[in-house]
Amino acid sequence: MTTTKAYAAQTDHSPLTPWTVERRDPKPHDVQIEILFCGVCHSDLHFARNEWGMTVFPVVPGHEIVGRVTAVGAHVKKFKAGDLAAIGCLVDSCRECDNCKEGLEQYCAQGGVFTYGGMERDGSGPTYGGYSKMILAHEDFVLRISDKLDLAATAPLLCAGITTYSPLRHWKIGPGMKVGILGLGGLGHMGVKFAVSMGAEVTMLSHSPSKEKDAQRLGAHKFVLTSDEAQAKSVTGYFDFILDTVSAQHDYNFYLGMLKTNGTMVCVGVPPAPTPVHSMSLIFGRKSLGGSLIGGLPETQEMLDYCAEHNIVSDIELIRMDEINEAYERMLKGDVRYRFVIDMSSL
Amino acid sequence: MTTTKAYAAQTDHSPLTPWTVERRDPKPHDVQIEILFCGVCHSDLHFARNEWGMTVFPVVPGHEIVGRVTAVGAHVKKFKAGDLAAIGCLVDSCRECDNCKEGLEQYCAQGGVFTYGGMERDGSGPTYGGYSKMILAHEDFVLRISDKLDLAATAPLLCAGITTYSPLRHWKIGPGMKVGILGLGGLGHMGVKFAVSMGAEVTMLSHSPSKEKDAQRLGAHKFVLTSDEAQAKSVTGYFDFILDTVSAQHDYNFYLGMLKTNGTMVCVGVPPAPTPVHSMSLIFGRKSLGGSLIGGLPETQEMLDYCAEHNIVSDIELIRMDEINEAYERMLKGDVRYRFVIDMSSL
Repeated sequence: MTTTKAYAAQTDHSPLTPWTVERRDPKPHDVQIEILFCGVCHSDLHFARNEWGMTVFPVVPGHEIVGRVTAVGAHVKKFKAGDLAAIGCLVDSCRECDNCKEGLEQYCAQGGVFTYGGMERDGSGPTYGGYSKMILAHEDFVLRISDKLDLAATAPLLCAGITTYSPLRHWKIGPGMKVGILGLGGLGHMGVKFAVSMGAEVTMLSHSPSKEKDAQRLGAHKFVLTSDEAQAKSVTGYFDFILDTVSAQHDYNFYLGMLKTNGTMVCVGVPPAPTPVHSMSLIFGRKSLGGSLIGGLPETQEMLDYCAEHNIVSDIELIRMDEINEAYERMLKGDVRYRFVIDMSSL
Repeated sequence: MTTTKAYAAQTDHSPLTPWTVERRDPKPHDVQIEILFCGVCHSDLHFARNEWGMTVFPVVPGHEIVGRVTAVGAHVKKFKAGDLAAIGCLVDSCRECDNCKEGLEQYCAQGGVFTYGGMERDGSGPTYGGYSKMILAHEDFVLRISDKLDLAATAPLLCAGITTYSPLRHWKIGPGMKVGILGLGGLGHMGVKFAVSMGAEVTMLSHSPSKEKDAQRLGAHKFVLTSDEAQAKSVTGYFDFILDTVSAQHDYNFYLGMLKTNGTMVCVGVPPAPTPVHSMSLIFGRKSLGGSLIGGLPETQEMLDYCAEHNIVSDIELIRMDEINEAYERMLKGDVRYRFVIDMSSL
């Protein structure tokens, strides 16, 4: 076993503080990574505060991990010491179910092993995430990243990136399509970049007038202030596809009304309570409301390669490890453009 | 103008009673039909009692209409006097919007003209439905029916038939797929017949043990009693597609849990109140919740031709016109297997 420095929440009401994680020694297929940067996802905060009721404490959050390989097991073929590498939301899965065989490990029938807050499949204990100096995982769950992109700004691709890329690909977004991105935050700003890069006409849907300028800078072709009745009405029956990145409570029916016939709205955010859906909102116009969870390992690699090719990274604000609690408070206020990334050299 | 006998509700709390409708004389493209049979849809009852708050009284319900052509306008090409013919839920639409041009008149951007409770596009007044001796419509909204099928049992195809056929076709149901049909009523029993005929493995999902035998008779391969916890659990993550025909309040999340990854549940019923949907129910498994409304004219004709080819009709109970109020009461209790059809010779 190796000990490594980390930051952990010890209870649901305590701030994150320094802690020490015990990591296993590399197994034959393991890749050991010195973590250089780790993105801060809203899920980290949900878990640290046990807002989804499933946290086992202490918890070390962080699943947007980039770094450099320091050691590899004897059977590892994909990586060698010195390579750049990344780990996202998953570090293992059953590998045997239909979904795993199709590269949809995020929907593993036995439940994928999440990078933090999960349980190792060999029963050796809980998983601890990227708010730490070192991590290791089976090479099948480690991703290659380009040295052409800013490394810190690459980290959020591992969750915010794949979470938005995957549904846009699955629902075949491309030229000639009108796409709405609902909510301009960590997820939404990646959604705009991807949808624009795929050739769609992209509209930012936001209730914050202050976001208009940024939406344009990110490449959005239109901006609709959803709190303005006339603006909202102007996009009735307008979109082929809406990517809903909002985690606050909101009315799905309102946005379903903006879809044209056969349109689809896909949720990637999890509002605290279920949202009442009127079947009429779906029946009139043969519309669909879908959901999507991160992406599988093959698609995550595809997304990272796509980002290298199209020069896409996240807009970030780099913080020190000891600024994490303040960052959580700012995140709660939406005061981040658009992702905090922890510089792990500060730990 | 021609007067024709009908049955109408004069207020939202009065029974249906004899009334006289004034019908226009045939215009050059009109087909005039002597109504022989008219199916009784649950929407008829909703409208007669103004449960959707949009009824203009008096209302003559009925949109599952079959009969014989008695006269045609000078320009009519598709029909001649003596032909069998049918009219479904629509008698007109704008014909100019993208949806109309694609044969999706049910999603007409200007709103299709419904067979009853609608407003004629020329401003000449409200539309009156099939609880009457005669009706006419533009030939584009009149359908051909086969003389090989039982005529009375053909009537419900015009609404219950197309409402279930259309989503099964749109979501490409076929061999190798596992399909659940939720609810065994007028819609559900047609859903079973169609899904079986398309080659899918079909499971009837019902909370009534009494429906099992009928489900088998209709061709369902399996029956799951949804009120039995073990039976319901046995189909967790099982279906590619669920057709939800239930109009009573029910929990979408419960049934979404029965879908496999990438599965879709499509609602054709309208529960009285919106249904809370947890985004997790969609996100885990990349599932979709959709809706579908009847079908366009080309697809309705396709469905009628398909039924003639596959010998598919509705299971019906033939009633006299003066039994309609009693039939409504029985329909409210679910006491109909599976569609009342009015013998119009009784009027």
